[in-house]
Amino acid sequence: MGASKPIVLQSAANPTIRHLVRMRDNRARRKAGRVIVDGWRETRHAVEAGLPLLGLYVAETSADPRQSSDPATRQICLAADSAGQLHWVSESIMKKIAYGQSPRGVVAELEPREQGLSDLQLPADPLVMVLDRIEKPGNLGAVFRCADAVGVDAVLLCESGDLWNPNAIRSSQGAVFHVKNARGSQAEIAKCLEAHSMRLLAARVESSNPLWQASLQGAVAILLGSEATGLGDRWQRVSGKPVEGIQIPMSGTVDSLNVSVSAAVILYEAIRQRCPANH
Amino acid sequence: MGASKPIVLQSAANPTIRHLVRMRDNRARRKAGRVIVDGWRETRHAVEAGLPLLGLYVAETSADPRQSSDPATRQICLAADSAGQLHWVSESIMKKIAYGQSPRGVVAELEPREQGLSDLQLPADPLVMVLDRIEKPGNLGAVFRCADAVGVDAVLLCESGDLWNPNAIRSSQGAVFHVKNARGSQAEIAKCLEAHSMRLLAARVESSNPLWQASLQGAVAILLGSEATGLGDRWQRVSGKPVEGIQIPMSGTVDSLNVSVSAAVILYEAIRQRCPANH
Repeated sequence: MGASKPIVLQSAANPTIRHLVRMRDNRARRKAGRVIVDGWRETRHAVEAGLPLLGLYVAETSADPRQSSDPATRQICLAADSAGQLHWVSESIMKKIAYGQSPRGVVAELEPREQGLSDLQLPADPLVMVLDRIEKPGNLGAVFRCADAVGVDAVLLCESGDLWNPNAIRSSQGAVFHVKNARGSQAEIAKCLEAHSMRLLAARVESSNPLWQASLQGAVAILLGSEATGLGDRWQRVSGKPVEGIQIPMSGTVDSLNVSVSAAVILYEAIRQRCPANH
Repeated sequence: MGASKPIVLQSAANPTIRHLVRMRDNRARRKAGRVIVDGWRETRHAVEAGLPLLGLYVAETSADPRQSSDPATRQICLAADSAGQLHWVSESIMKKIAYGQSPRGVVAELEPREQGLSDLQLPADPLVMVLDRIEKPGNLGAVFRCADAVGVDAVLLCESGDLWNPNAIRSSQGAVFHVKNARGSQAEIAKCLEAHSMRLLAARVESSNPLWQASLQGAVAILLGSEATGLGDRWQRVSGKPVEGIQIPMSGTVDSLNVSVSAAVILYEAIRQRCPANH
Protein backbone atom coordinates (compact mmCIF):
# COMPACT_ATOMS: atom_id res chain seq x y z
CA MET A 1 0.00 0.00 0.00
CA GLY A 2 1.02 3.63 -0.42
CA ALA A 3 3.88 4.75 -2.65
CA SER A 4 6.64 2.85 -0.87
CA LYS A 5 8.39 -0.15 -2.34
CA PRO A 6 7.87 -2.50 0.57
CA ILE A 7 9.67 -5.77 -0.10
CA VAL A 8 11.99 -6.73 -2.91
CA LEU A 9 11.98 -10.44 -3.73
CA GLN A 10 15.59 -11.36 -4.30
CA SER A 11 15.93 -15.01 -3.40
CA ALA A 12 15.49 -17.74 -5.97
CA ALA A 13 14.43 -19.95 -3.04
CA ASN A 14 11.37 -17.78 -2.38
CA PRO A 15 8.29 -19.99 -3.05
CA THR A 16 6.64 -17.37 -5.28
CA ILE A 17 9.78 -17.09 -7.42
CA ARG A 18 10.17 -20.86 -7.57
CA HIS A 19 6.55 -21.08 -8.74
CA LEU A 20 7.12 -18.44 -11.46
CA VAL A 21 10.30 -20.14 -12.66
CA ARG A 22 8.36 -23.41 -12.86
CA MET A 23 5.65 -21.63 -14.88
CA ARG A 24 8.31 -20.91 -17.53
CA ASP A 25 8.20 -24.57 -18.36
CA ASN A 26 5.40 -24.69 -20.93
CA ARG A 27 4.12 -28.08 -19.86
CA ALA A 28 4.02 -27.16 -16.16
CA ARG A 29 2.30 -23.88 -17.02
CA ARG A 30 -0.37 -25.58 -19.11
CA LYS A 31 -0.94 -28.15 -16.38
CA ALA A 32 -1.32 -25.40 -13.76
CA GLY A 33 -3.67 -23.42 -16.01
CA ARG A 34 -1.75 -20.17 -15.98
CA VAL A 35 -0.74 -17.46 -18.44
CA ILE A 36 2.57 -15.71 -17.93
CA VAL A 37 2.92 -12.43 -19.79
CA ASP A 38 6.02 -10.31 -20.45
CA GLY A 39 5.87 -6.61 -21.18
CA TRP A 40 3.49 -3.81 -20.29
CA ARG A 41 1.63 -3.66 -23.61
CA GLU A 42 0.82 -7.38 -23.51
CA THR A 43 -0.09 -7.21 -19.81
CA ARG A 44 -2.48 -4.32 -20.49
CA HIS A 45 -4.12 -6.31 -23.28
CA ALA A 46 -4.53 -9.35 -21.04
CA VAL A 47 -6.05 -7.37 -18.17
CA GLU A 48 -8.28 -5.32 -20.49
CA ALA A 49 -9.52 -8.56 -22.04
CA GLY A 50 -10.69 -9.58 -18.58
CA LEU A 51 -8.16 -12.22 -17.58
CA PRO A 52 -7.99 -12.35 -13.77
CA LEU A 53 -4.62 -11.02 -12.60
CA LEU A 54 -2.82 -13.13 -10.01
CA GLY A 55 0.44 -11.23 -9.69
CA LEU A 56 2.49 -8.43 -11.21
CA TYR A 57 6.30 -8.60 -10.87
CA VAL A 58 8.31 -5.47 -11.56
CA ALA A 59 12.09 -5.03 -11.54
CA GLU A 60 13.09 -2.91 -8.55
CA THR A 61 15.25 -0.78 -10.86
CA SER A 62 12.21 0.23 -12.94
CA ALA A 63 10.47 3.53 -12.45
CA ASP A 64 7.43 3.05 -10.19
CA PRO A 65 4.69 1.91 -12.61
CA ARG A 66 2.01 3.22 -10.19
CA GLN A 67 3.18 6.60 -11.43
CA SER A 68 3.41 5.61 -15.11
CA SER A 69 2.48 8.27 -17.65
CA ASP A 70 0.26 5.65 -19.30
CA PRO A 71 -3.15 5.77 -17.57
CA ALA A 72 -3.97 2.10 -18.24
CA THR A 73 -0.65 0.92 -16.81
CA ARG A 74 -1.11 3.18 -13.80
CA GLN A 75 -4.61 1.89 -13.13
CA ILE A 76 -3.58 -1.77 -13.41
CA CYS A 77 -0.70 -1.21 -11.01
CA LEU A 78 -2.73 0.71 -8.44
CA ALA A 79 -5.41 -1.99 -8.50
CA ALA A 80 -2.78 -4.73 -8.20
CA ASP A 81 -1.12 -2.86 -5.35
CA SER A 82 -4.37 -2.57 -3.37
CA ALA A 83 -4.96 -6.28 -3.90
CA GLY A 84 -1.45 -7.10 -2.66
CA GLN A 85 -0.52 -8.41 -6.10
CA LEU A 86 2.22 -5.92 -6.97
CA HIS A 87 5.69 -7.24 -6.19
CA TRP A 88 9.14 -5.87 -6.71
CA VAL A 89 11.92 -8.24 -7.65
CA SER A 90 15.68 -7.81 -7.92
CA GLU A 91 17.20 -7.61 -11.38
CA SER A 92 18.69 -11.08 -11.14
CA ILE A 93 15.30 -12.54 -10.16
CA MET A 94 13.68 -10.67 -13.05
CA LYS A 95 16.12 -12.39 -15.42
CA LYS A 96 15.04 -15.75 -13.99
CA ILE A 97 11.30 -15.18 -14.34
CA ALA A 98 11.27 -13.26 -17.65
CA TYR A 99 11.17 -14.96 -21.03
CA GLY A 100 14.19 -14.52 -23.29
CA GLN A 101 17.41 -12.61 -22.84
CA SER A 102 15.96 -9.12 -22.42
CA PRO A 103 13.37 -8.80 -19.66
CA ARG A 104 10.71 -6.26 -20.60
CA GLY A 105 10.14 -4.60 -17.24
CA VAL A 106 7.22 -6.67 -16.03
CA VAL A 107 6.10 -10.26 -15.73
CA ALA A 108 2.41 -10.86 -15.02
CA GLU A 109 0.69 -14.04 -13.95
CA LEU A 110 -2.94 -14.42 -14.97
CA GLU A 111 -5.66 -17.00 -15.27
CA PRO A 112 -6.49 -17.86 -18.87
CA ARG A 113 -10.05 -17.90 -20.11
CA GLU A 114 -10.78 -20.83 -22.34
CA GLN A 115 -14.00 -20.99 -24.25
CA GLY A 116 -15.66 -24.19 -25.41
CA LEU A 117 -16.66 -24.54 -29.04
CA SER A 118 -20.24 -25.22 -27.99
CA ASP A 119 -20.42 -21.96 -26.02
CA LEU A 120 -19.15 -19.89 -28.92
CA GLN A 121 -21.34 -16.85 -29.42
CA LEU A 122 -21.18 -15.32 -32.87
CA PRO A 123 -22.98 -12.40 -34.53
CA ALA A 124 -25.06 -12.84 -37.68
CA ASP A 125 -22.94 -13.53 -40.78
CA PRO A 126 -19.75 -14.07 -38.84
CA LEU A 127 -16.27 -13.98 -40.37
CA VAL A 128 -14.30 -16.79 -38.76
CA MET A 129 -10.80 -18.15 -39.31
CA VAL A 130 -9.98 -21.81 -38.73
CA LEU A 131 -6.32 -22.69 -38.18
CA ASP A 132 -5.53 -26.32 -38.93
CA ARG A 133 -2.50 -27.85 -37.25
CA ILE A 134 -0.53 -24.62 -36.95
CA GLU A 135 2.05 -25.41 -34.32
CA LYS A 136 4.62 -22.62 -34.38
CA PRO A 137 3.73 -20.12 -31.64
CA GLY A 138 5.24 -17.21 -33.59
CA ASN A 139 2.97 -17.96 -36.56
CA LEU A 140 -0.09 -18.43 -34.36
CA GLY A 141 0.53 -15.08 -32.70
CA ALA A 142 1.13 -13.30 -36.01
CA VAL A 143 -2.17 -14.64 -37.38
CA PHE A 144 -3.99 -13.39 -34.26
CA ARG A 145 -2.43 -9.96 -34.74
CA CYS A 146 -3.91 -9.85 -38.27
CA ALA A 147 -7.22 -11.36 -37.16
CA ASP A 148 -7.51 -8.61 -34.54
CA ALA A 149 -6.67 -5.85 -37.02
CA VAL A 150 -9.26 -7.16 -39.46
CA GLY A 151 -11.84 -7.67 -36.72
CA VAL A 152 -12.68 -11.34 -37.30
CA ASP A 153 -15.41 -12.70 -35.05
CA ALA A 154 -13.49 -15.77 -33.88
CA VAL A 155 -10.45 -17.92 -34.57
CA LEU A 156 -10.97 -21.66 -34.20
CA LEU A 157 -7.89 -23.74 -33.43
CA CYS A 158 -7.98 -27.23 -34.88
CA GLU A 159 -5.22 -29.35 -33.38
CA SER A 160 -3.06 -26.22 -33.27
CA GLY A 161 -0.40 -25.01 -30.86
CA ASP A 162 -0.45 -23.22 -27.52
CA LEU A 163 -1.80 -19.69 -27.62
CA TRP A 164 -0.23 -18.82 -24.26
CA ASN A 165 3.29 -19.68 -25.38
CA PRO A 166 5.46 -16.58 -24.79
CA ASN A 167 6.31 -16.35 -28.50
CA ALA A 168 2.64 -16.48 -29.47
CA ILE A 169 1.79 -13.71 -27.00
CA ARG A 170 4.70 -11.59 -28.17
CA SER A 171 4.16 -11.94 -31.91
CA SER A 172 0.44 -11.25 -31.46
CA GLN A 173 1.30 -8.07 -29.54
CA GLY A 174 -1.35 -9.17 -27.07
CA ALA A 175 -4.08 -9.88 -29.63
CA VAL A 176 -4.31 -13.51 -28.43
CA PHE A 177 -6.16 -12.12 -25.41
CA HIS A 178 -8.69 -10.14 -27.41
CA VAL A 179 -9.70 -12.26 -30.35
CA LYS A 180 -12.45 -14.73 -29.43
CA ASN A 181 -11.17 -18.27 -29.89
CA ALA A 182 -11.93 -21.90 -29.14
CA ARG A 183 -10.17 -25.14 -29.89
CA GLY A 184 -11.26 -28.59 -30.93
CA SER A 185 -10.75 -31.60 -33.14
CA GLN A 186 -11.57 -31.57 -36.83
CA ALA A 187 -14.92 -33.29 -36.17
CA GLU A 188 -15.82 -30.86 -33.38
CA ILE A 189 -14.99 -27.83 -35.46
CA ALA A 190 -16.88 -29.19 -38.48
CA LYS A 191 -19.90 -29.63 -36.19
CA CYS A 192 -19.53 -26.08 -34.88
CA LEU A 193 -19.36 -24.64 -38.42
CA GLU A 194 -22.49 -26.56 -39.32
CA ALA A 195 -24.30 -25.41 -36.19
CA HIS A 196 -23.59 -21.80 -37.19
CA SER A 197 -24.48 -22.50 -40.87
CA MET A 198 -21.07 -21.29 -41.96
CA ARG A 199 -19.71 -21.74 -45.45
CA LEU A 200 -16.15 -23.08 -45.31
CA LEU A 201 -13.47 -21.88 -47.75
CA ALA A 202 -10.12 -23.65 -47.65
CA ALA A 203 -6.92 -21.86 -48.70
CA ARG A 204 -4.96 -24.29 -50.87
CA VAL A 205 -1.99 -23.48 -53.09
CA GLU A 206 -3.21 -26.17 -55.49
CA SER A 207 -6.70 -24.64 -55.85
CA SER A 208 -7.55 -23.06 -59.21
CA ASN A 209 -10.04 -20.64 -57.69
CA PRO A 210 -8.36 -17.25 -57.27
CA LEU A 211 -9.27 -15.53 -54.03
CA TRP A 212 -10.99 -12.65 -55.82
CA GLN A 213 -13.36 -14.90 -57.64
CA ALA A 214 -14.74 -16.44 -54.47
CA SER A 215 -17.56 -14.85 -52.52
CA LEU A 216 -16.43 -14.09 -48.99
CA GLN A 217 -19.72 -12.55 -47.94
CA GLY A 218 -22.21 -13.99 -45.46
CA ALA A 219 -21.39 -16.52 -42.74
CA VAL A 220 -17.91 -17.58 -43.79
CA ALA A 221 -15.09 -19.56 -42.22
CA ILE A 222 -11.64 -19.35 -43.83
CA LEU A 223 -9.53 -22.46 -43.31
CA LEU A 224 -5.76 -22.16 -43.28
CA GLY A 225 -3.14 -24.88 -42.84
CA SER A 226 0.50 -24.65 -41.87
CA GLU A 227 3.10 -23.14 -44.15
CA ALA A 228 5.11 -26.35 -44.30
CA THR A 229 2.43 -28.91 -45.01
CA GLY A 230 -0.67 -26.95 -46.01
CA LEU A 231 -4.00 -28.72 -45.52
CA GLY A 232 -2.97 -31.81 -47.46
CA ASP A 233 -5.89 -34.20 -47.77
CA ARG A 234 -7.69 -32.82 -44.76
CA TRP A 235 -10.94 -30.87 -44.99
CA GLN A 236 -11.76 -32.01 -48.53
CA ARG A 237 -15.35 -32.63 -47.46
CA VAL A 238 -17.33 -31.40 -44.48
CA SER A 239 -20.72 -32.87 -43.59
CA GLY A 240 -20.65 -34.81 -46.86
CA LYS A 241 -20.22 -31.70 -49.01
CA PRO A 242 -17.02 -30.77 -50.88
CA VAL A 243 -15.20 -27.77 -49.43
CA GLU A 244 -14.60 -24.86 -51.84
CA GLY A 245 -10.91 -24.08 -52.29
CA ILE A 246 -9.43 -20.63 -52.68
CA GLN A 247 -5.96 -19.75 -53.81
CA ILE A 248 -3.79 -16.68 -53.41
CA PRO A 249 -2.29 -16.08 -56.86
CA MET A 250 1.51 -16.22 -56.84
CA SER A 251 3.73 -15.29 -59.71
CA GLY A 252 7.28 -15.26 -58.38
CA THR A 253 9.90 -17.81 -57.48
CA VAL A 254 9.00 -18.36 -53.82
CA ASP A 255 6.48 -21.14 -53.47
CA SER A 256 4.57 -20.01 -50.42
CA LEU A 257 3.68 -17.05 -48.26
CA ASN A 258 4.09 -16.81 -44.52
CA VAL A 259 0.89 -18.04 -42.89
CA SER A 260 0.11 -14.68 -41.26
CA VAL A 261 0.58 -12.96 -44.64
CA SER A 262 -1.80 -15.46 -46.26
CA ALA A 263 -4.31 -14.91 -43.47
CA ALA A 264 -4.13 -11.13 -43.83
CA VAL A 265 -4.49 -11.15 -47.63
CA ILE A 266 -7.58 -13.39 -47.48
CA LEU A 267 -9.17 -11.63 -44.50
CA TYR A 268 -8.69 -8.17 -46.00
CA GLU A 269 -10.26 -9.34 -49.26
CA ALA A 270 -13.17 -10.61 -47.17
CA ILE A 271 -13.47 -7.22 -45.46
CA ARG A 272 -13.35 -5.45 -48.82
CA GLN A 273 -16.15 -7.62 -50.17
CA ARG A 274 -18.22 -7.26 -47.00
CA CYS A 275 -18.04 -3.47 -46.86
CA PRO A 276 -20.83 -1.91 -48.95
CA ALA A 277 -18.79 1.25 -49.55
CA ASN A 278 -16.38 -0.74 -51.67
CA HIS A 279 -18.86 -1.72 -54.35
CA MET B 1 36.68 -33.60 -60.39
CA GLY B 2 35.14 -37.05 -60.33
CA ALA B 3 32.99 -38.32 -57.48
CA SER B 4 35.74 -38.35 -54.87
CA LYS B 5 35.81 -35.97 -51.93
CA PRO B 6 39.34 -34.70 -52.42
CA ILE B 7 40.27 -32.41 -49.53
CA VAL B 8 38.39 -31.60 -46.36
CA LEU B 9 39.14 -28.17 -44.95
CA GLN B 10 39.39 -28.62 -41.21
CA SER B 11 41.73 -25.94 -39.94
CA ALA B 12 40.45 -22.59 -38.80
CA ALA B 13 43.87 -21.24 -39.79
CA ASN B 14 43.26 -22.07 -43.46
CA PRO B 15 43.20 -18.73 -45.35
CA THR B 16 39.90 -19.58 -47.12
CA ILE B 17 38.22 -20.38 -43.81
CA ARG B 18 39.66 -17.27 -42.20
CA HIS B 19 38.26 -15.25 -45.10
CA LEU B 20 34.80 -16.84 -44.74
CA VAL B 21 34.75 -16.26 -40.99
CA ARG B 22 35.66 -12.62 -41.64
CA MET B 23 32.81 -12.39 -44.15
CA ARG B 24 30.41 -13.20 -41.28
CA ASP B 25 31.13 -9.74 -39.98
CA ASN B 26 28.51 -7.68 -41.81
CA ARG B 27 30.71 -4.63 -42.14
CA ALA B 28 33.68 -6.59 -43.50
CA ARG B 29 31.38 -8.41 -45.92
CA ARG B 30 29.86 -5.20 -47.24
CA LYS B 31 33.32 -3.69 -47.64
CA ALA B 32 34.54 -6.74 -49.55
CA GLY B 33 31.43 -6.76 -51.74
CA ARG B 34 30.37 -10.31 -51.06
CA VAL B 35 27.17 -12.23 -50.39
CA ILE B 36 27.30 -15.23 -48.07
CA VAL B 37 24.33 -17.56 -48.36
CA ASP B 38 23.24 -20.40 -46.06
CA GLY B 39 21.08 -23.28 -47.24
CA TRP B 40 20.46 -24.99 -50.54
CA ARG B 41 17.21 -23.28 -51.41
CA GLU B 42 18.68 -19.82 -50.95
CA THR B 43 21.86 -20.81 -52.81
CA ARG B 44 19.82 -22.09 -55.75
CA HIS B 45 17.89 -18.81 -55.87
CA ALA B 46 21.13 -16.79 -55.82
CA VAL B 47 22.75 -18.82 -58.60
CA GLU B 48 19.55 -18.92 -60.68
CA ALA B 49 19.32 -15.15 -60.35
CA GLY B 50 22.74 -14.93 -61.99
CA LEU B 51 25.00 -14.02 -59.08
CA PRO B 52 28.53 -15.23 -59.87
CA LEU B 53 29.43 -18.12 -57.55
CA LEU B 54 32.82 -17.87 -55.89
CA GLY B 55 32.75 -20.91 -53.62
CA LEU B 56 30.48 -23.64 -52.28
CA TYR B 57 31.28 -25.12 -48.85
CA VAL B 58 29.62 -28.38 -47.87
CA ALA B 59 29.89 -30.28 -44.57
CA GLU B 60 31.85 -33.48 -45.14
CA THR B 61 29.17 -35.41 -43.28
CA SER B 62 26.52 -34.37 -45.83
CA ALA B 63 25.42 -36.66 -48.62
CA ASP B 64 27.34 -35.76 -51.80
CA PRO B 65 25.28 -32.89 -53.29
CA ARG B 66 26.63 -33.73 -56.78
CA GLN B 67 24.30 -36.69 -56.52
CA SER B 68 21.40 -34.72 -55.06
CA SER B 69 17.91 -35.80 -56.12
CA ASP B 70 17.21 -32.14 -56.83
CA PRO B 71 18.33 -31.42 -60.43
CA ALA B 72 19.12 -27.74 -59.79
CA THR B 73 21.27 -28.53 -56.76
CA ARG B 74 23.06 -31.26 -58.71
CA GLN B 75 23.77 -28.97 -61.62
CA ILE B 76 25.09 -26.16 -59.42
CA CYS B 77 27.38 -28.59 -57.60
CA LEU B 78 28.71 -30.26 -60.73
CA ALA B 79 29.44 -26.86 -62.29
CA ALA B 80 31.11 -25.66 -59.09
CA ASP B 81 33.11 -28.87 -58.91
CA SER B 82 34.44 -28.46 -62.47
CA ALA B 83 35.39 -24.88 -61.68
CA GLY B 84 37.25 -25.98 -58.53
CA GLN B 85 34.74 -24.12 -56.36
CA LEU B 86 33.26 -27.05 -54.44
CA HIS B 87 34.91 -27.57 -51.06
CA TRP B 88 34.26 -29.97 -48.21
CA VAL B 89 34.69 -28.73 -44.69
CA SER B 90 34.69 -30.52 -41.35
CA GLU B 91 31.65 -30.16 -39.15
CA SER B 92 33.45 -27.89 -36.71
CA ILE B 93 34.53 -25.61 -39.57
CA MET B 94 30.96 -25.59 -40.90
CA LYS B 95 29.78 -24.32 -37.51
CA LYS B 96 32.32 -21.50 -37.76
CA ILE B 97 31.35 -20.36 -41.25
CA ALA B 98 27.57 -20.90 -41.06
CA TYR B 99 25.16 -18.31 -39.70
CA GLY B 100 23.30 -19.14 -36.52
CA GLN B 101 23.30 -22.22 -34.35
CA SER B 102 22.09 -24.75 -36.91
CA PRO B 103 24.19 -24.92 -40.09
CA ARG B 104 22.00 -25.69 -43.08
CA GLY B 105 24.32 -27.99 -45.02
CA VAL B 106 25.93 -25.44 -47.31
CA VAL B 107 27.51 -22.03 -47.23
CA ALA B 108 27.97 -20.26 -50.57
CA GLU B 109 30.03 -17.21 -51.37
CA LEU B 110 28.85 -15.10 -54.28
CA GLU B 111 29.30 -11.70 -55.84
CA PRO B 112 26.29 -9.44 -55.38
CA ARG B 113 24.76 -7.59 -58.27
CA GLU B 114 23.83 -4.04 -57.42
CA GLN B 115 21.80 -1.97 -59.81
CA GLY B 116 21.84 1.80 -59.95
CA LEU B 117 18.56 3.70 -59.82
CA SER B 118 19.39 5.37 -63.12
CA ASP B 119 19.84 2.01 -64.87
CA LEU B 120 16.51 0.69 -63.63
CA GLN B 121 14.59 -0.86 -66.49
CA LEU B 122 10.86 -1.11 -65.95
CA PRO B 123 7.96 -2.33 -68.10
CA ALA B 124 5.04 -0.08 -69.05
CA ASP B 125 2.76 0.67 -66.08
CA PRO B 126 5.10 -0.80 -63.50
CA LEU B 127 4.08 -1.77 -59.99
CA VAL B 128 6.90 -0.68 -57.69
CA MET B 129 7.35 -0.76 -53.92
CA VAL B 130 9.44 1.86 -52.11
CA LEU B 131 10.71 0.98 -48.64
CA ASP B 132 11.58 4.00 -46.55
CA ARG B 133 14.07 3.55 -43.73
CA ILE B 134 13.26 -0.10 -43.06
CA GLU B 135 16.27 -1.33 -41.16
CA LYS B 136 15.38 -4.73 -39.72
CA PRO B 137 16.78 -7.41 -42.03
CA GLY B 138 14.00 -9.87 -41.13
CA ASN B 139 11.34 -7.34 -42.16
CA LEU B 140 13.17 -6.43 -45.37
CA GLY B 141 13.41 -10.09 -46.32
CA ALA B 142 9.76 -10.77 -45.50
CA VAL B 143 8.69 -7.84 -47.70
CA PHE B 144 10.80 -9.21 -50.56
CA ARG B 145 9.17 -12.62 -50.16
CA CYS B 146 5.75 -10.95 -50.63
CA ALA B 147 6.97 -8.70 -53.44
CA ASP B 148 8.22 -11.79 -55.27
CA ALA B 149 4.95 -13.69 -54.76
CA VAL B 150 2.97 -10.72 -56.06
CA GLY B 151 5.36 -10.14 -58.95
CA VAL B 152 6.22 -6.48 -58.37
CA ASP B 153 8.49 -4.96 -60.98
CA ALA B 154 11.00 -3.48 -58.54
CA VAL B 155 11.60 -2.64 -54.90
CA LEU B 156 13.38 0.67 -54.25
CA LEU B 157 15.27 0.94 -50.97
CA CYS B 158 15.33 4.44 -49.53
CA GLU B 159 17.88 4.66 -46.72
CA SER B 160 16.97 1.09 -45.81
CA GLY B 161 18.98 -1.82 -44.42
CA ASP B 162 21.28 -4.43 -45.90
CA LEU B 163 19.61 -6.88 -48.27
CA TRP B 164 22.48 -9.37 -47.97
CA ASN B 165 22.22 -9.66 -44.22
CA PRO B 166 21.75 -13.37 -43.40
CA ASN B 167 18.40 -12.70 -41.73
CA ALA B 168 17.16 -10.80 -44.79
CA ILE B 169 18.19 -13.64 -47.10
CA ARG B 170 16.59 -16.24 -44.85
CA SER B 171 13.28 -14.49 -44.26
CA SER B 172 13.00 -13.72 -47.98
CA GLN B 173 13.56 -17.43 -48.74
CA GLY B 174 15.95 -16.24 -51.45
CA ALA B 175 13.59 -13.69 -53.02
CA VAL B 176 16.11 -10.89 -52.35
CA PHE B 177 18.09 -12.33 -55.27
CA HIS B 178 15.16 -12.35 -57.70
CA VAL B 179 13.25 -9.16 -57.17
CA LYS B 180 14.75 -6.24 -59.07
CA ASN B 181 15.90 -3.58 -56.66
CA ALA B 182 17.95 -0.42 -56.35
CA ARG B 183 18.77 1.90 -53.49
CA GLY B 184 19.10 5.62 -53.10
CA SER B 185 18.36 8.72 -51.08
CA GLN B 186 14.89 10.23 -50.87
CA ALA B 187 15.81 12.82 -53.52
CA GLU B 188 17.26 10.20 -55.86
CA ILE B 189 14.23 7.95 -55.56
CA ALA B 190 11.83 10.87 -56.05
CA LYS B 191 13.74 11.71 -59.24
CA CYS B 192 13.54 8.10 -60.41
CA LEU B 193 9.78 7.95 -59.79
CA GLU B 194 9.37 11.15 -61.78
CA ALA B 195 11.54 9.86 -64.63
CA HIS B 196 9.25 6.83 -64.89
CA SER B 197 6.09 8.98 -64.51
CA MET B 198 5.01 6.94 -61.53
CA ARG B 199 2.17 7.92 -59.25
CA LEU B 200 3.23 7.59 -55.61
CA LEU B 201 0.86 6.28 -52.93
CA ALA B 202 2.05 6.41 -49.34
CA ALA B 203 0.75 3.96 -46.74
CA ARG B 204 -0.03 5.94 -43.60
CA VAL B 205 -2.02 4.78 -40.57
CA GLU B 206 -3.26 8.35 -40.18
CA SER B 207 -4.61 8.57 -43.75
CA SER B 208 -8.40 8.68 -44.16
CA ASN B 209 -8.28 7.09 -47.62
CA PRO B 210 -9.05 3.38 -47.31
CA LEU B 211 -6.90 1.22 -49.54
CA TRP B 212 -9.90 0.03 -51.57
CA GLN B 213 -10.92 3.51 -52.52
CA ALA B 214 -7.58 4.35 -54.12
CA SER B 215 -6.77 3.47 -57.70
CA LEU B 216 -3.74 1.21 -57.84
CA GLN B 217 -3.78 0.88 -61.61
CA GLY B 218 -1.25 2.29 -64.04
CA ALA B 219 2.34 3.24 -63.18
CA VAL B 220 2.22 3.10 -59.40
CA ALA B 221 4.77 3.13 -56.60
CA ILE B 222 3.62 2.10 -53.11
CA LEU B 223 5.58 3.73 -50.31
CA LEU B 224 5.93 1.96 -46.99
CA GLY B 225 7.74 3.08 -43.84
CA SER B 226 8.93 1.13 -40.85
CA GLU B 227 6.55 -0.46 -38.38
CA ALA B 228 7.94 1.54 -35.46
CA THR B 229 8.03 5.04 -36.90
CA GLY B 230 5.97 4.90 -40.11
CA LEU B 231 6.73 7.60 -42.66
CA GLY B 232 6.34 10.47 -40.21
CA ASP B 233 6.67 13.79 -42.00
CA ARG B 234 8.63 12.34 -44.87
CA TRP B 235 7.26 12.06 -48.41
CA GLN B 236 4.41 14.52 -47.85
CA ARG B 237 5.22 16.14 -51.19
CA VAL B 238 7.21 14.92 -54.17
CA SER B 239 8.21 17.25 -56.99
CA GLY B 240 6.03 19.94 -55.46
CA LYS B 241 2.88 17.80 -55.53
CA PRO B 242 1.17 16.33 -52.44
CA VAL B 243 1.50 12.56 -52.13
CA GLU B 244 -1.78 10.61 -51.91
CA GLY B 245 -2.08 8.62 -48.70
CA ILE B 246 -3.66 5.21 -48.37
CA GLN B 247 -4.64 3.42 -45.21
CA ILE B 248 -5.25 -0.21 -44.35
CA PRO B 249 -8.45 -0.19 -42.29
CA MET B 250 -7.94 -1.62 -38.79
CA SER B 251 -10.67 -2.36 -36.32
CA GLY B 252 -9.05 -4.27 -33.45
CA THR B 253 -6.91 -3.43 -30.48
CA VAL B 254 -3.46 -3.79 -32.07
CA ASP B 255 -2.32 -0.51 -33.53
CA SER B 256 -0.23 -1.70 -36.44
CA LEU B 257 0.44 -4.58 -38.77
CA ASN B 258 3.78 -6.18 -39.46
CA VAL B 259 5.40 -4.35 -42.39
CA SER B 260 5.42 -7.45 -44.62
CA VAL B 261 1.73 -8.01 -43.87
CA SER B 262 0.98 -4.39 -44.80
CA ALA B 263 3.01 -4.77 -47.98
CA ALA B 264 1.18 -7.95 -48.96
CA VAL B 265 -2.29 -6.55 -48.29
CA ILE B 266 -1.61 -3.44 -50.41
CA LEU B 267 0.20 -5.29 -53.20
CA TYR B 268 -2.51 -7.95 -53.51
CA GLU B 269 -5.16 -5.24 -53.69
CA ALA B 270 -3.09 -3.67 -56.49
CA ILE B 271 -2.94 -7.01 -58.30
CA ARG B 272 -6.68 -7.48 -57.90
CA GLN B 273 -7.36 -4.05 -59.38
CA ARG B 274 -4.87 -4.56 -62.20
CA CYS B 275 -6.25 -7.93 -63.32
CA PRO B 276 -9.09 -7.40 -65.82
CA ALA B 277 -10.69 -10.75 -64.84
CA ASN B 278 -11.52 -9.33 -61.44
CA HIS B 279 -13.86 -6.61 -62.63
